[in-house]
Amino acid sequence: MKTILIIGAGRSCSSMIRYFLQNAIQEDWTIRVGDRDLKTAQEKVGDHPRGEAFQFNALDAEERNAAFKEVDLVVSMLPAHLHIDIAKDCIAKKINLITPSYISPEMKALDDAAKVAGIIIMNEIGVDPGIDHMSAKKVLDKIEAEGGEMTCFESFTGGLVAPESDDNPWNYKFTWNPRNVVLAGQGSASKFIQEGQYKYIPYHKLFRRTEIIDIDGYGKFEGYANRDSLKYRAVYGLVGIPTIYRGTLRRVGFCRAWNVFVQLGATDDTYILEGSKNMTKRDFINSFLSYNPHDSVELKLRYYLKIEQDDIIWDKLVWLGIFEHTPLGIEEDQTPAQILQKILEEKWTLHPNDKDMIVMWHKFGYKIGGEQKWVHSSMVYIGEDQTYTAMSETVGLPVAICAKMILNNTISSKGVHLPITKEIYKPVLDELQEHGIRFIEQEIQ
Amino acid sequence: MKTILIIGAGRSCSSMIRYFLQNAIQEDWTIRVGDRDLKTAQEKVGDHPRGEAFQFNALDAEERNAAFKEVDLVVSMLPAHLHIDIAKDCIAKKINLITPSYISPEMKALDDAAKVAGIIIMNEIGVDPGIDHMSAKKVLDKIEAEGGEMTCFESFTGGLVAPESDDNPWNYKFTWNPRNVVLAGQGSASKFIQEGQYKYIPYHKLFRRTEIIDIDGYGKFEGYANRDSLKYRAVYGLVGIPTIYRGTLRRVGFCRAWNVFVQLGATDDTYILEGSKNMTKRDFINSFLSYNPHDSVELKLRYYLKIEQDDIIWDKLVWLGIFEHTPLGIEEDQTPAQILQKILEEKWTLHPNDKDMIVMWHKFGYKIGGEQKWVHSSMVYIGEDQTYTAMSETVGLPVAICAKMILNNTISSKGVHLPITKEIYKPVLDELQEHGIRFIEQEIQ
Repeated sequence: MKTILIIGAGRSCSSMIRYFLQNAIQEDWTIRVGDRDLKTAQEKVGDHPRGEAFQFNALDAEERNAAFKEVDLVVSMLPAHLHIDIAKDCIAKKINLITPSYISPEMKALDDAAKVAGIIIMNEIGVDPGIDHMSAKKVLDKIEAEGGEMTCFESFTGGLVAPESDDNPWNYKFTWNPRNVVLAGQGSASKFIQEGQYKYIPYHKLFRRTEIIDIDGYGKFEGYANRDSLKYRAVYGLVGIPTIYRGTLRRVGFCRAWNVFVQLGATDDTYILEGSKNMTKRDFINSFLSYNPHDSVELKLRYYLKIEQDDIIWDKLVWLGIFEHTPLGIEEDQTPAQILQKILEEKWTLHPNDKDMIVMWHKFGYKIGGEQKWVHSSMVYIGEDQTYTAMSETVGLPVAICAKMILNNTISSKGVHLPITKEIYKPVLDELQEHGIRFIEQEIQ
Repeated sequence: MKTILIIGAGRSCSSMIRYFLQNAIQEDWTIRVGDRDLKTAQEKVGDHPRGEAFQFNALDAEERNAAFKEVDLVVSMLPAHLHIDIAKDCIAKKINLITPSYISPEMKALDDAAKVAGIIIMNEIGVDPGIDHMSAKKVLDKIEAEGGEMTCFESFTGGLVAPESDDNPWNYKFTWNPRNVVLAGQGSASKFIQEGQYKYIPYHKLFRRTEIIDIDGYGKFEGYANRDSLKYRAVYGLVGIPTIYRGTLRRVGFCRAWNVFVQLGATDDTYILEGSKNMTKRDFINSFLSYNPHDSVELKLRYYLKIEQDDIIWDKLVWLGIFEHTPLGIEEDQTPAQILQKILEEKWTLHPNDKDMIVMWHKFGYKIGGEQKWVHSSMVYIGEDQTYTAMSETVGLPVAICAKMILNNTISSKGVHLPITKEIYKPVLDELQEHGIRFIEQEIQ
């Protein structure tokens, strides 16, 4: 009998916990699910004989000490910055650990300690990061084995609304954390390298420098650059590759309309908008436009951002209600980004029967025998419903499958890892296929 | 005999130290000038019988302890964040202190302690901040005394090249700290209020939302908004004023051309441009443009930023040499802002015989007896040469005059102050007039 401790039982955990429970008897597992909110944990576990829900404050060292007894593997679904204390406890108690989050430098630094403890700490094994790494490395390793030399690697992922639920002019609804969507691309410039030339896109130009991608059966998408594509040269063993680019997918037309908010400054999260608690949606937009006693907010916005009267982005803006004389309905002054998020959440929320969709697309260019070759690899996955969403499936299943592989010794590596070695990605990708998460790889002529 | 201790003897201190030395015998002063670089201090003091130059590390508490003995007034010309330790020592030793820098919250918090010690700590008494406060408050107090109610206050200052030395297409040369010019406007959005409506301009739009100002005899200037105009409502006693706006002046056309660098992302100081140490100026610009094997950097830039072939900003860009195949000449990778500053310094540096110019312009709107009235107040001051620059005169003379007024008890206030009370601004402005720094106030019909 092996015991798996899951920390955090929020929305993204449904599919993972279902997998664990469905396999618990066959694999002889006990599944303990701890969440700050007991009810959240109970809902996920139900009355499964091998499941146990409990209230758990993972920030409390004593509670952790009690919960980490006689556990074989911990899955931490907490926000990324909270993993490190858990990792240290896992090392002290020699318990394997999995998180779907980006690996931090502090986490990386635990590699030796984890090896000494004889455990594995697996990170970035959700969807993005996670399935992107695994599906890309699978092709990259194959090209390398054939003697090919990589010249280009591009990779895009998007969390979107499924085509059957796509009923608004933005072709977008929030399926992941809305705050991350509003703040996407902020901070430093986006960096990548193209034909050996470093390229930098500042935030205020990011949504105007998109690439169009066509995926068989699903139509066109557009991608904007992620913050730092350069670091993946080292992670993927592609040091010296002339072109590497990672990006985020939206439906075509989204970025040009979103750029209106970027240009206005309405996505800024660095200052509180003085007076905003008494503003209407219209006032909010007007606060970014110059003063004029005679002109409408609409005309000022069109003139300022040079939006033609018949431009299709106009419908998108009107549909959001940003010109309405409706109070923002906030208690205290907030940042522009917080206010914009609130406006968007009224419109971009999934309806009860809506489904979400994860889209991933890679492009590989390589030279072999003097010839330039191209391979595309794509995956589209549509969620079951609002519990077993595409997001929940693609984040949770790799975590759960990886847990199984660790507990049954299919994965025997120790130390701090990403899922980029064949020992790890192969069994995980194989089993994901059985769950309908499959990549179509095509050589392009 | 009174002793004045000046900390820091850099370029901006020439006029101040000259004033102190010229008045030393009549006022019975000893002038001690300490700088980390002894030679810098010696150059300023020369062989004046009442002057004394010494090497001084103001960051060393023991050196401060030794230097602060038998001193009646300290002038700190150090960077703003270094004033606070000096202020605490001045309180402990009951020595008056003057700095031209913006007052910090920590400095403000010393008000009570300074009053108990019986000293004055005067801040923001250079040019901007300094002369702007004094010249504005003079008019504001007059309007208030007449029973007027302020409806609008706008204030602009610029450090520019004098018309007789203005010989480049940007009509601009560095006369203040070049780094501050490159980074101007970055950080949070610029905030102001217009006709009772809060207005916010994000950095990437700042240089496209300028106001044109005409100053008799000097022609047209353009102003862009400073970061936070709102805080001056409290400072100037204008809480409730419907319009307040503070800005920075450039010659007309500068901002639209500067905006090219903003749009490219070339003013970004938040990340290191990987590979930049091996770049040419042309490569640097190209790193912000999309990859294309056939098109020139020039055409890509024009297309990206929609610059017409005959647009006058094009000459400005070409003149800077940004398209040249010339190495940047940097030892290590740098930030875009650092690299841009280096390119600009090769072109925007004052020639040995060039003169600089300070321009200040205020607009006051007020209601009196049911009538709306307008007053403009402007000041233009041209430097003598490259030692006694307009910057050095307008920063240094208010400091020095204020020092005299404190030492001869014309100013008797205690505590932490700005120069916004009549006791302070009146004598300082009166004496500045004798030095040619005078405001022309005009009622506008």
